[in-house]
Amino acid sequence: MPDMILTTFDWVPDLPRGYVRDLRVRWALEEARLPYRVASVPFTPSVPFRDLDADQMAQHPYAQVPWLTDGDQTIFESGAILLYLGERSAALMPTDPRARQDVITWLFAALNSVEAASLPWSIYQFAGDSEQTPGRAHLDAFLKARVRYTEQVLAGRDWLAGTFSIADIAMSDVLRLVDRFDGLADAPACRAYVARATARPAFAKAYADQMAHFAAAD
Amino acid sequence: MPDMILTTFDWVPDLPRGYVRDLRVRWALEEARLPYRVASVPFTPSVPFRDLDADQMAQHPYAQVPWLTDGDQTIFESGAILLYLGERSAALMPTDPRARQDVITWLFAALNSVEAASLPWSIYQFAGDSEQTPGRAHLDAFLKARVRYTEQVLAGRDWLAGTFSIADIAMSDVLRLVDRFDGLADAPACRAYVARATARPAFAKAYADQMAHFAAAD
Repeated sequence: MPDMILTTFDWVPDLPRGYVRDLRVRWALEEARLPYRVASVPFTPSVPFRDLDADQMAQHPYAQVPWLTDGDQTIFESGAILLYLGERSAALMPTDPRARQDVITWLFAALNSVEAASLPWSIYQFAGDSEQTPGRAHLDAFLKARVRYTEQVLAGRDWLAGTFSIADIAMSDVLRLVDRFDGLADAPACRAYVARATARPAFAKAYADQMAHFAAAD
Repeated sequence: MPDMILTTFDWVPDLPRGYVRDLRVRWALEEARLPYRVASVPFTPSVPFRDLDADQMAQHPYAQVPWLTDGDQTIFESGAILLYLGERSAALMPTDPRARQDVITWLFAALNSVEAASLPWSIYQFAGDSEQTPGRAHLDAFLKARVRYTEQVLAGRDWLAGTFSIADIAMSDVLRLVDRFDGLADAPACRAYVARATARPAFAKAYADQMAHFAAAD
């Protein structure tokens, strides 16, 4: 069976390095010890949201990375890729149906309940925009609430679904970006969780590999 | 086997009626002709993001609705519930592995690539906030790009993954809220897709049932 192929950009600016979403997939592949190789497509800045070329748009209709190729099948969306890999390794998702369901529930919680608040919030942080408007007040309160709820959960457990899983890859990566802009100041359990997750050797390998991949194109 | 139980709020103000996420679950249950009953918890406004009571927080750590109870198992997150139901009905997700993967990929695309842009955008619309700041310009461009990419996909197909599936329930419901604030003005294929999805008898039943449920508490 040929190795899986993880496709990411060939280069990105310094700011997103260490945070490009291929990291989630590298991390999962390292945890599961699944062999893979990395392929690249030319970087297109997310602003002004240009298309990739036609071949690449066929692989990823939202002009993002990563995507994963396994034989003749291509999967985009980091959440979908994590679930695909989770179904192939008990190191990423337990096979017991109840435990598996908990992992899936928390995977969606990370990507929809939390990241739908944290991603727009981080857009404002990246833009250096601190102007308080009514909508902005809502958005800040939205993120703050999502962090507070997550804090209540993580105060009582090491990992979201009992044992480490793809849900923790997604959630800790989402929280890592919030932490970058000091959004976890009032959430010590979230900070400890991010520290616990990123102390895993598979994360360290994935992170170093991403940084080296982009540095090689400088 | 006892019926599944869908829990939602007992009442909400007029503004969110027809858009509360229990609709996604009702719709899927109706498409699959799975028997269910509806339970209620007291409404808590999402702003200022108060907690539900302790029992309810145990069911939904993000203090939202809906959640689905099936026997002694409770699942929260509309995406996770849709996937759970999809695995129980070929009317919601095909069993062929390749087709199933396409559905899952598009489910994540709807909830992460599109809704992570559309939800914050709608927060500004609900707030009546039109002040253009640098972050807001990014957020508007982000939503516009996501709609444009979705438009390119939907210009070529009726349903995201070949046949109607849980991915279409999620995506059309996400786009329906964008359309409410006229965000699909330049996206005729998206508008036609929303019209096609909401013309399904199962949507009509789900929508009417949600409206009647909240009206009964007025």
